[in-house]
Amino acid sequence: MTNLYHEITPEGFGIAIEEDKYLFSDKSDFQTVDVFHSRAFGNVLTLDGLMMVTERDEFFYHEMIVHIPMLTHKNPENILVIGGGDGGTVRELLKYDSVKHIDMVEIDGMVIDVSKKYFPTVSCGLEDKRVSVLVQDAIDFIKGKENIYDVVLIDSTDPIGPGEGLFNENFYNNVKRALKSGGIVVPQTEGPFAQSENMQKTYKLLRKVFKFVAPYTGPMPTYPGGIWSWGFCSEEVNIPVSYSDINIKEAEKIENTCKLYNKDLHLACFKVPNFVKELANG
Amino acid sequence: MTNLYHEITPEGFGIAIEEDKYLFSDKSDFQTVDVFHSRAFGNVLTLDGLMMVTERDEFFYHEMIVHIPMLTHKNPENILVIGGGDGGTVRELLKYDSVKHIDMVEIDGMVIDVSKKYFPTVSCGLEDKRVSVLVQDAIDFIKGKENIYDVVLIDSTDPIGPGEGLFNENFYNNVKRALKSGGIVVPQTEGPFAQSENMQKTYKLLRKVFKFVAPYTGPMPTYPGGIWSWGFCSEEVNIPVSYSDINIKEAEKIENTCKLYNKDLHLACFKVPNFVKELANG
Repeated sequence: MTNLYHEITPEGFGIAIEEDKYLFSDKSDFQTVDVFHSRAFGNVLTLDGLMMVTERDEFFYHEMIVHIPMLTHKNPENILVIGGGDGGTVRELLKYDSVKHIDMVEIDGMVIDVSKKYFPTVSCGLEDKRVSVLVQDAIDFIKGKENIYDVVLIDSTDPIGPGEGLFNENFYNNVKRALKSGGIVVPQTEGPFAQSENMQKTYKLLRKVFKFVAPYTGPMPTYPGGIWSWGFCSEEVNIPVSYSDINIKEAEKIENTCKLYNKDLHLACFKVPNFVKELANG
Repeated sequence: MTNLYHEITPEGFGIAIEEDKYLFSDKSDFQTVDVFHSRAFGNVLTLDGLMMVTERDEFFYHEMIVHIPMLTHKNPENILVIGGGDGGTVRELLKYDSVKHIDMVEIDGMVIDVSKKYFPTVSCGLEDKRVSVLVQDAIDFIKGKENIYDVVLIDSTDPIGPGEGLFNENFYNNVKRALKSGGIVVPQTEGPFAQSENMQKTYKLLRKVFKFVAPYTGPMPTYPGGIWSWGFCSEEVNIPVSYSDINIKEAEKIENTCKLYNKDLHLACFKVPNFVKELANG
């Protein structure tokens, strides 16, 4: 029988993927980093045994975390990515002519190196001259930063291990201070079905810090539960409810480059299931 | 180690669920029927080893197959359910005062019996006086029926085994003939990520038969890929694009009974990812 990779939640369910071939396994200063090849998903990256990226379905996550805030902002020029060492978020950001500079702050250099070697279609933007790759702890990096970024994307792991400090009121306050007027922050906010408790806690914190906070959701085949959420947070910008609330001309250009994103989905992704609303509101 | 139930697609990925306890296993005239209990999902029903129903996440599927057509139709009185032996679809249909009669045509009586015993919260409507439970092949049942149903829901298994004949042009033509004017048909149309080939074939057939054909999607945690699709098909009714296209007063009542469905999601679920549009259109 083929060897199966499993990610099983504490509740006792999850995903299984046939492993063809082990490609890499090592311990960094922060976590265990593994890469294997699978027939179903191409190369697969896991951190501490938890699914991070697969070549076949990474677009679901990266298109959603990037294009929703970027096409709601009027003119995003200066961007901060926290985490996201695989490079998929940066790749999507580089589609925008308006972007002048991207800081990517990833705590674990091994994730970046592994992505460059085993995920070339994901990490392809990391050498771009508009991108600064900073290997350091975002908790330190963000302290004292004021009025710098138009969009901040928190592309973190789960709130255990190295990602834990990124789900924290003090950290969110520092992120808010780093925003320019009209700025938008989007953290990944866990799976509403498989990590409902994590999600609920995260929204409690986000609502303490930001004026406008709303979840949006999308499918994510290799994350347990199959549905994922991101939090749209801002002091000045509310969620888009019509085409006039988004940069429609740019959205039409971007959707031609995407497997998932389109301008209709942009508005629709905020129309979440009742149980997701409840998790985010209470 | 706890025993794991797996459903692995031919491509080599899928779901895994910890089994607490085996409750039932038998072969009917059509398929192998198994029930086990799991901590994550409560009781779980599989047919020929493929996931059908779990107590915890069945609402995703049943709310979506039922409320989208029912609240788009002006006055649904007479309903046909093809398959759906677990009873979840009938349970959701019985929320409507407008419904005068439901025919449920399920080929496998063992599925009905097992659901009554092990899934009481799913099968609870099957004894209702508005429901006729008919244990027979829907392919024969539908032949020669004309101008009878307002809404037909094809709540079938995958297009292998007993469900195969329900993905067929001739069958769809017979279903169309059984519709009243203004009628709507919704078949489940497989997972766009995990069963993309099945989905594409199904839409090719549906477009040959019905004037209006459009996919809508929703999350489905225990089906491989985590995203599921249904086909909105009609000769007279196009997909809803605004509140005025749905029975908004009834929708507001129904959404209070649902974990997933709400009137915003009703419109949003038709705004599908680019790759889903491509599967349905080509």
